[in-house]
Amino acid sequence: MSERPRRVAVIGTGVIGRSWSRVFTRAGCDVQAWDPQPAAVSAAVAWHTREVARDRDEPAPAGNASDGRLTPMRTLQDAVAGVDYVQESGPESLPAKRAIFAELDVAAPPRAILASSTSAIDMSAIADGLSGAQRCIVAHPVNPPHVVPAVEVLGGRETTAETVDETIRVLRAVGQSPVILTRYVPGFLVNRLQMALVREALSLLSSGVATADAIDAVVRDGLGLRWALLGPFGVANTNADGGVREYLTRYRTSIEGLMADLGESPPLEASFVEGVGQATDAMEAGAPRDEVREWRDRLVSRIVALKRADPHPTRTSD
Amino acid sequence: MSERPRRVAVIGTGVIGRSWSRVFTRAGCDVQAWDPQPAAVSAAVAWHTREVARDRDEPAPAGNASDGRLTPMRTLQDAVAGVDYVQESGPESLPAKRAIFAELDVAAPPRAILASSTSAIDMSAIADGLSGAQRCIVAHPVNPPHVVPAVEVLGGRETTAETVDETIRVLRAVGQSPVILTRYVPGFLVNRLQMALVREALSLLSSGVATADAIDAVVRDGLGLRWALLGPFGVANTNADGGVREYLTRYRTSIEGLMADLGESPPLEASFVEGVGQATDAMEAGAPRDEVREWRDRLVSRIVALKRADPHPTRTSD
Repeated sequence: MSERPRRVAVIGTGVIGRSWSRVFTRAGCDVQAWDPQPAAVSAAVAWHTREVARDRDEPAPAGNASDGRLTPMRTLQDAVAGVDYVQESGPESLPAKRAIFAELDVAAPPRAILASSTSAIDMSAIADGLSGAQRCIVAHPVNPPHVVPAVEVLGGRETTAETVDETIRVLRAVGQSPVILTRYVPGFLVNRLQMALVREALSLLSSGVATADAIDAVVRDGLGLRWALLGPFGVANTNADGGVREYLTRYRTSIEGLMADLGESPPLEASFVEGVGQATDAMEAGAPRDEVREWRDRLVSRIVALKRADPHPTRTSD
Repeated sequence: MSERPRRVAVIGTGVIGRSWSRVFTRAGCDVQAWDPQPAAVSAAVAWHTREVARDRDEPAPAGNASDGRLTPMRTLQDAVAGVDYVQESGPESLPAKRAIFAELDVAAPPRAILASSTSAIDMSAIADGLSGAQRCIVAHPVNPPHVVPAVEVLGGRETTAETVDETIRVLRAVGQSPVILTRYVPGFLVNRLQMALVREALSLLSSGVATADAIDAVVRDGLGLRWALLGPFGVANTNADGGVREYLTRYRTSIEGLMADLGESPPLEASFVEGVGQATDAMEAGAPRDEVREWRDRLVSRIVALKRADPHPTRTSD
């Protein structure tokens, strides 16, 4: 399969699963969706209908072809019938993932890829003992995947190189930006990098250096504007005329000093968390959460569209 | 002064100083620029002329009023004559800053603010012993300030609250987003948060988990797209229906575990830095650095314009 898959199963239709369904239908794939709770599937279908209507008003970044169909299915077995690719987004626990992958491995066509949205669990543990372990893989999105392109791709011990390659091809074909990890590490890349920033933010807040709003502002009106375009290596590479080598050499003393001086987060005890909550309320009190999420998704989509219209001068991997 | 300053001095016209000159002229201020190297002033004037022409093609985010004039001056004393505000962007060393602030304090009108672009030095040390220490302040931009709005504002021991308030007013009036720190901490907010991300990125690269391109990709095509809109507290607040309190409580064990597991950067020895350089080359080999910077600035300007046209539902501080 060099093109997008014709038919895809979305297993688990919560916030992540329903977003995946839109990734696939937007790319022209027919999606068969299932969730152990029938009400969750109905809610996902209703959400999907609204998203399709919204995309008609504002063309989505990956907008192409005609939309595929989203079909709610009554059983997991029905959902995986005839599919090329399965995206699982069930509960984030090893026993739950093991149970569902055992079912998927029996029911799905032998050549279908079985991908999990897990943000933390090693595929070696999920697929351990399955006869189809070689086709099982992690494809962890950044929430929500129909808006944010990056997807972490990581096999387990028995996952074949063919499965990794095919997963990359599928994700690219539906407009995502797959990123390959070579081995398991807790939190993968996304949550480790996110937690590095969160840890320092919590440390700065708890030491009283600045408000939550100030800490957030230097990110959203400063560092984050560059990070939407260039990662830490790309930024460092523009920070000196001689690139990242000159940057790390010329400023070595101050960079090493700052890195050594970074803080630890206090334990997340109830009283500390309440303080963080109040500091965050002071920043955006009264903002209805769903309205903020809709704003975030609308603007992220537009930023992605800006980047696709005017890409990095030489990078080909975006 | 409740409106933008009428006349501003830009002292030091390297990459940061010339960018400041465009911040001020774009807002309608007349800028008097000086640098100890006359060639640097001429280069800055030429750069400024090109930027003005470019802004005519693509209106800048803060675009308003008619442009102020940029006038190269032959001495520091001429440059500060009659100004309301001085933005110093000279060499990043305490003796150099102390020497220049001593001159500025003698030469500038008594009520003018003396602001430094320093990214690291405590204003208490720069202004120590000056009769005008109360009007000296740090206003540290994220490079380049004519594109990126955030500016860290931090007084020294003797800086008055009036100076802080006035600096905030000036920066807002010229279209920047000032962020207040309550006390000195090495690296301020910007470089501490940046180094937290860089440290984990270097650690992940050195442990062989992923390539520099993969690490950068989860930022530029993932986390960074959200960080252009919401800082770490804002993101956490959208990550659970109950907001940041629920997020830090429900996921406490995994968040604390990940924070404790984050890596240290290896010492930045020549062989390690060369490895980082090669990994970065593999990502964007052949990209002319100036072309990447122009692309970065063009797209950051457009992202800022998107946010100004469609701001966060309730935040008023942007």
